Amino acid sequence: MHSDDAARGKRHRVLIIGGGFGGLSAARALAKTPVEVTLVDRRNHHLFQPLLYQVATAGLSAPSIAAPLRFILREQANAFVYMDEALEIDRERKTVRFAHGVREYDTLVVATGAGHAYFGHDEWAKDAPGLKTLEDAFHIRRRILLAFENAERETDPAKRQAWLNFVIVGGGATGVELAGTLAEIARHTLPREFRNSEPRDANIMLVEAGPRVLPAFAEDLSEKARKQLVKLGVDVRTGGAVTAIDAHGVDLGDQHIAARTVLWAAGVAASPLGALLGAPVDRAGRVQVLGDLSIPGDPDVFVIGDLASVNSDGKPVPGVAPAAKQMGAYVGSVIRARIEDQAAPAPFRYRDDGSLATIGRMAAVAQFGKVKLSGVLAWWVWLIAHVYFLIGFRNRLVVLMDWASSYWTYQRHARIVQGDIGRDDPPR
Amino acid sequence: MHSDDAARGKRHRVLIIGGGFGGLSAARALAKTPVEVTLVDRRNHHLFQPLLYQVATAGLSAPSIAAPLRFILREQANAFVYMDEALEIDRERKTVRFAHGVREYDTLVVATGAGHAYFGHDEWAKDAPGLKTLEDAFHIRRRILLAFENAERETDPAKRQAWLNFVIVGGGATGVELAGTLAEIARHTLPREFRNSEPRDANIMLVEAGPRVLPAFAEDLSEKARKQLVKLGVDVRTGGAVTAIDAHGVDLGDQHIAARTVLWAAGVAASPLGALLGAPVDRAGRVQVLGDLSIPGDPDVFVIGDLASVNSDGKPVPGVAPAAKQMGAYVGSVIRARIEDQAAPAPFRYRDDGSLATIGRMAAVAQFGKVKLSGVLAWWVWLIAHVYFLIGFRNRLVVLMDWASSYWTYQRHARIVQGDIGRDDPPR
Repeated sequence: MHSDDAARGKRHRVLIIGGGFGGLSAARALAKTPVEVTLVDRRNHHLFQPLLYQVATAGLSAPSIAAPLRFILREQANAFVYMDEALEIDRERKTVRFAHGVREYDTLVVATGAGHAYFGHDEWAKDAPGLKTLEDAFHIRRRILLAFENAERETDPAKRQAWLNFVIVGGGATGVELAGTLAEIARHTLPREFRNSEPRDANIMLVEAGPRVLPAFAEDLSEKARKQLVKLGVDVRTGGAVTAIDAHGVDLGDQHIAARTVLWAAGVAASPLGALLGAPVDRAGRVQVLGDLSIPGDPDVFVIGDLASVNSDGKPVPGVAPAAKQMGAYVGSVIRARIEDQAAPAPFRYRDDGSLATIGRMAAVAQFGKVKLSGVLAWWVWLIAHVYFLIGFRNRLVVLMDWASSYWTYQRHARIVQGDIGRDDPPR
Repeated sequence: MHSDDAARGKRHRVLIIGGGFGGLSAARALAKTPVEVTLVDRRNHHLFQPLLYQVATAGLSAPSIAAPLRFILREQANAFVYMDEALEIDRERKTVRFAHGVREYDTLVVATGAGHAYFGHDEWAKDAPGLKTLEDAFHIRRRILLAFENAERETDPAKRQAWLNFVIVGGGATGVELAGTLAEIARHTLPREFRNSEPRDANIMLVEAGPRVLPAFAEDLSEKARKQLVKLGVDVRTGGAVTAIDAHGVDLGDQHIAARTVLWAAGVAASPLGALLGAPVDRAGRVQVLGDLSIPGDPDVFVIGDLASVNSDGKPVPGVAPAAKQMGAYVGSVIRARIEDQAAPAPFRYRDDGSLATIGRMAAVAQFGKVKLSGVLAWWVWLIAHVYFLIGFRNRLVVLMDWASSYWTYQRHARIVQGDIGRDDPPR
């Protein structure tokens, strides 16, 4: 057994907080640099967030889209992985206080991402859960599956229908994916299994305050996505914001919509760790970093991924997985240049490799520069891209198998409600 | 939409509480009998408990060994499935009060199984979790994986070793399976991934109060199992009971064993619903039923599976899955005979199809009457039997694939700790 100190020697210490796309890619970029890389995350796994909605909708099991961080980095001899929670950053002493001890750094990379934002209505959180972590996905899965169970047990028609009404708030990629998949579950997966209630009676409503769904895409693709959603049976409502949410439904303008299941896909707020850095933050709490992704006045502290606010070619870099990966790799190159006394790389530039969003069975939209795709072809591109970027051969194979089986049988294999129904469940 | 009443008509109502092997098999046995079958479970899924230890040790994901009850019974037109929790049984009024309403029955089948028993030491439960439900499996998985994470973070050698010491209490099939698998994880799965600690330093201790492990098997097979465990690196201690358990270890006779992870596989206690029936129960809380599995004085109430205490050929029927299945099928035939005014079947007889227990890689023991197997051959029989009885083609395929990949790579794909590490975790 060798101690921390012996293994560490006198190498430059790079401390990375967060094992998402940004943090992991920074760690990997430093594999061949003579530094000691320490990656700390509150969780033991890296999560392939683009497929998290599939766990929430019972299509995939959690281990298919998550892998232990120390497994991913097992061959990287200069990498140490710890499971711990960062509580405080002391930039003067160059230390981070974690729940289980203090760690020193020479260079710090903060990559703790973002959570949900309820635009000043944090009281909505309990009735409109969002989707960022595996636990969120299990919670949403439980809510969706229990809604159909409750409808089956309910004898009052109006109350039953309220269990069959689903409102998804937010028309970005996650909202669109959840709505399309829910419609498929209600129409195709569940019908034969219920005796008193009719899953096909479910109403899936997608609410977007802006004028169109998938606002990050070109207008004609937004329109195509809307049409594909409507074809799947989704009630798409754009141009009006939700003004109230409680356990029994939402208010949308003058209208009250009775719905016992409301899902939140509308806003993100940067991780609270950003504010602890003492650097300037934007309205969403993201840290405004310099062109080399370090914070103003402290070249030894970098912020990357969804927690960073930076422009590239005059436009804000979007909070997406490819941007986080690129930032991680870039920061790795900046650190390497410093260690090797090379010239600093040019400021970070985001390379837009295109955008993809899936809607449902063989329905998706894709945009690569001027090339726009929709429908079946876009869906195949989406599928291949997502399977390709999954970590691990086993996961690729199982995900492909699950999708194939799901496609032919309309079944979803992960329809497991964790835990008892309990006496107070549903709690209201 | 049709109401409960319309669908029900005037058919004889069979209410089954519990969707384990017993309850599910009773429901299926009544598929072609003109009765209304209502199956109620607190959970939405049937669980293949014989492989639960694989979920606890990160080898399989939950959906591989669990399937929604209503999916399993979807083609059975006379079966209704509800997710609810039974609170009270009124045998005079022939009603059961559930958390979400009261249901009437003409015939009641109680099949709620068993939980953990700590022999009067319920305070041990928090430090020595048992394995009965998916939540138990996730909790144990979390404890095991966090133990290695904590060892990696710990700098004090004695404290580190305490994180690497594992005590499994109880030398039955579950204890043997957990011990063998843990030894494999420590020796083969994890070693390359840790930098400060050495997973191979883990001590896996299996404690059995009786004179031998796997007491349900013949003596020579117990001895073979012990040898196979020792070969895997398990420290097997028989003939001495644990006298104290807390968060820092166990007392075994005069010896204190420092271990931060203690798992309980020693005793089961019948579901509390048995006591609510007002029928005679044995020391373990199991309901003493008559030869036709009904309770004394009430031919309309049956108790089956682990909750039932009954003799067959002068010997107590063991609390195993095949016995529960046979009881379910038998009670189905009793009810059918009554409905069809046929003579009552002969009293229940347990048909012992043999016993199987796996120990580790290619190591198992099997006993079929006078035929005894051990080692590789027993392991193949175990594998084929377990895959065969899994529900669903997809599960069979994925489980086989996971085992094959686990076998060649020593990896375990479900190494996901659910939830944050948290500030107070480990809490002591």
